[in-house]
Amino acid sequence: MNSFMDDFPQDSRTDTEAPAPGPLSGITVVDLSRVLAGPYATMVLADLGARVIKVERPGEGDDSRGIGPFKDGKSAYFTSINRGKQSIALDLKDAGDRQVFEALLQRADVLVENYRPGTIDKLGYGWPALHERYPQLIYAAASGFGHSGPDSRKAAYDMVVQAMGGIMSVTGHPGGPPTRVGTSIGDITAGLFTVIGILSALHDRRDSGSGRFVDVAMLDGQIAILENAIARYAVTGEAPGPLGARHPSITPFAAFRCRDAHIVIAAGNDSLFRALCDVLGLPDLPGNPRFASNNARSENAEALHTVMEAQLETGDAATWLARLDEAGVPAGPLQDVGEALAHPQVRARNMAIRTAFEDGTPLTAAGNPVKISGFDDPATRPKAPALDEHRAAILAELGLASGTEQA
Amino acid sequence: MNSFMDDFPQDSRTDTEAPAPGPLSGITVVDLSRVLAGPYATMVLADLGARVIKVERPGEGDDSRGIGPFKDGKSAYFTSINRGKQSIALDLKDAGDRQVFEALLQRADVLVENYRPGTIDKLGYGWPALHERYPQLIYAAASGFGHSGPDSRKAAYDMVVQAMGGIMSVTGHPGGPPTRVGTSIGDITAGLFTVIGILSALHDRRDSGSGRFVDVAMLDGQIAILENAIARYAVTGEAPGPLGARHPSITPFAAFRCRDAHIVIAAGNDSLFRALCDVLGLPDLPGNPRFASNNARSENAEALHTVMEAQLETGDAATWLARLDEAGVPAGPLQDVGEALAHPQVRARNMAIRTAFEDGTPLTAAGNPVKISGFDDPATRPKAPALDEHRAAILAELGLASGTEQA
Repeated sequence: MNSFMDDFPQDSRTDTEAPAPGPLSGITVVDLSRVLAGPYATMVLADLGARVIKVERPGEGDDSRGIGPFKDGKSAYFTSINRGKQSIALDLKDAGDRQVFEALLQRADVLVENYRPGTIDKLGYGWPALHERYPQLIYAAASGFGHSGPDSRKAAYDMVVQAMGGIMSVTGHPGGPPTRVGTSIGDITAGLFTVIGILSALHDRRDSGSGRFVDVAMLDGQIAILENAIARYAVTGEAPGPLGARHPSITPFAAFRCRDAHIVIAAGNDSLFRALCDVLGLPDLPGNPRFASNNARSENAEALHTVMEAQLETGDAATWLARLDEAGVPAGPLQDVGEALAHPQVRARNMAIRTAFEDGTPLTAAGNPVKISGFDDPATRPKAPALDEHRAAILAELGLASGTEQA
Repeated sequence: MNSFMDDFPQDSRTDTEAPAPGPLSGITVVDLSRVLAGPYATMVLADLGARVIKVERPGEGDDSRGIGPFKDGKSAYFTSINRGKQSIALDLKDAGDRQVFEALLQRADVLVENYRPGTIDKLGYGWPALHERYPQLIYAAASGFGHSGPDSRKAAYDMVVQAMGGIMSVTGHPGGPPTRVGTSIGDITAGLFTVIGILSALHDRRDSGSGRFVDVAMLDGQIAILENAIARYAVTGEAPGPLGARHPSITPFAAFRCRDAHIVIAAGNDSLFRALCDVLGLPDLPGNPRFASNNARSENAEALHTVMEAQLETGDAATWLARLDEAGVPAGPLQDVGEALAHPQVRARNMAIRTAFEDGTPLTAAGNPVKISGFDDPATRPKAPALDEHRAAILAELGLASGTEQA
């Protein structure tokens, strides 16, 4: 283990299974989803207090149990996303297991799945069939392309939707090779929109009494986060390209080289720009018509960058950051993942939490960024489940004997 | 206007102001937020049917009205994010305007603001004061660093949290210059978590009867989307670096050069890898121990990339994509923003919608990726408001005469 883990606050909660109380306490989620988009959504729900029962296929379980990085043969990837969930292995083609699954649905508020559209219908568990049998059940499907449209039944992974959705076309350096966003933003965005759909449907259900079908496509999510790249295309008719490390229409808003390292500076308005120029010892710059307004600065971004960097390269990053901080100019260091997790603000906000592998071995993971008054925001989260770990407890709760019942 | 706009489906709804019915119909949001994180959150809420009343400062209004791209002097950036909202300009230091604001809060379900922590407290509208007066009001604050911790009162923009949160350290090419994710993922992620917090608090309020303080930090959101970069760091103690256009632990999952263009291929498991190798005419590859499992392939990713690309460069992108599609191997083109918006699947899912500038001039924008059965998913959205456009209507609704009342 690294030294960061060693000074982590201790808490005994990693070896309990009860979720911390949250605004979603009392909500039960049956989770058929695998790998990332669906499991990320149910992680967010679990962090907010929902009970998540992960239904895995017997034998191997969630594919991500087999995806690295590993520690002692267990996936840290799986563990970080599935902390605090329960697991039962069910073969949805087996009559006894189908009875268990249906008993779970009978008591559930939400079903989450991220199969390719059409797949689950073959098992008799598509939305139309389930809505008829469980009219209050909210059915959330996260898929690559969604449950409608000509490409609906195609499979997609994060890489495919990052490429097709346009975000790669605006990420990277002009003339440089294709650049993927370094995390699976295709899955994660879809996961967040799935949570928003589920919570909206829960809100609606209080009045309508009816469950809803929530249909979120990873590709749709990529379009939804294109932000002003769409506005630029719509206004000019020209597709924007990558801009390296600067913002397209706010300037200066970029990474700059100091003597020893890069820093970022975001002087988003005229008064911040004046404060910045004072720090840099360039007090005449704001009076120059080429740099007098944000729009002028954006048109002359490269010239401004050159002038600023010539000054910044005369000093060290830490010195400049201290001066910028004192002047109230938003700026910061380029931190790697270890530096980010060790940052005092990140620690103070419980954004680096401790969870555990299925055997109790501790693991650092991201915390819950949704802080809500009146609810716990623990620095630890319950461990991830072993495959089928909760079978006996769940069967007992459902009043079913283990493996002997038939539908 | 570009040709894409010309063939857009026509609909008269852009010139009405009524939101399309949605699961959040009946919810009223008072929105003090500016620029992106807060306004993105309230756009998502409005798209789902909530009524959003934008309270802007007199004179200039939301800062993003002054941020490009512009068309005829109006910001497409502002318009795309604020479609379907109402606007009233209020000076929160003026007694009459404070009375209006407080009357709005009296009827609102949610207040959203993205001021630097402490700012709004000086006006007497911080969470403790408002919770006492309006105990059912949900108060959502999106800020750079959050409402706790040593850096709480510092300002941050997207660029700063992208740098400090670690995502830039895993985006880009090894040894290359710093690379920003090409959209404001720092703001947008915070906006999505803010929506999740608001909807969770709405759910809780049905039982508790109490409003809550939702505190979302942009920096926290960046940590929350680091995904397996944290797992890799936690297991190895080494901070991961950028990987260009490939996934760190799923292989092959990358961009590859064909004769005329790059494509992406995501063969996330062994059977997809076998199908891929058949398409490439490399049937012996899966039997090679260096490439026999995902973990072996990830360890030998560069060697595999070289072998695959040598084959792919013998043909055109479109030809390879057709063959991969036929074989069921997830793959896709690298699309620019124009290509993405024109893609048949994106169009079929209403992800490129038409809204309008305040004067009714049409503008293409991203649609709502949260599709929920039983609710409209319109191809058009109401226009963005002119500053203070709804003053008279809102005052009349509140039973206040225009500008003459005093508290």
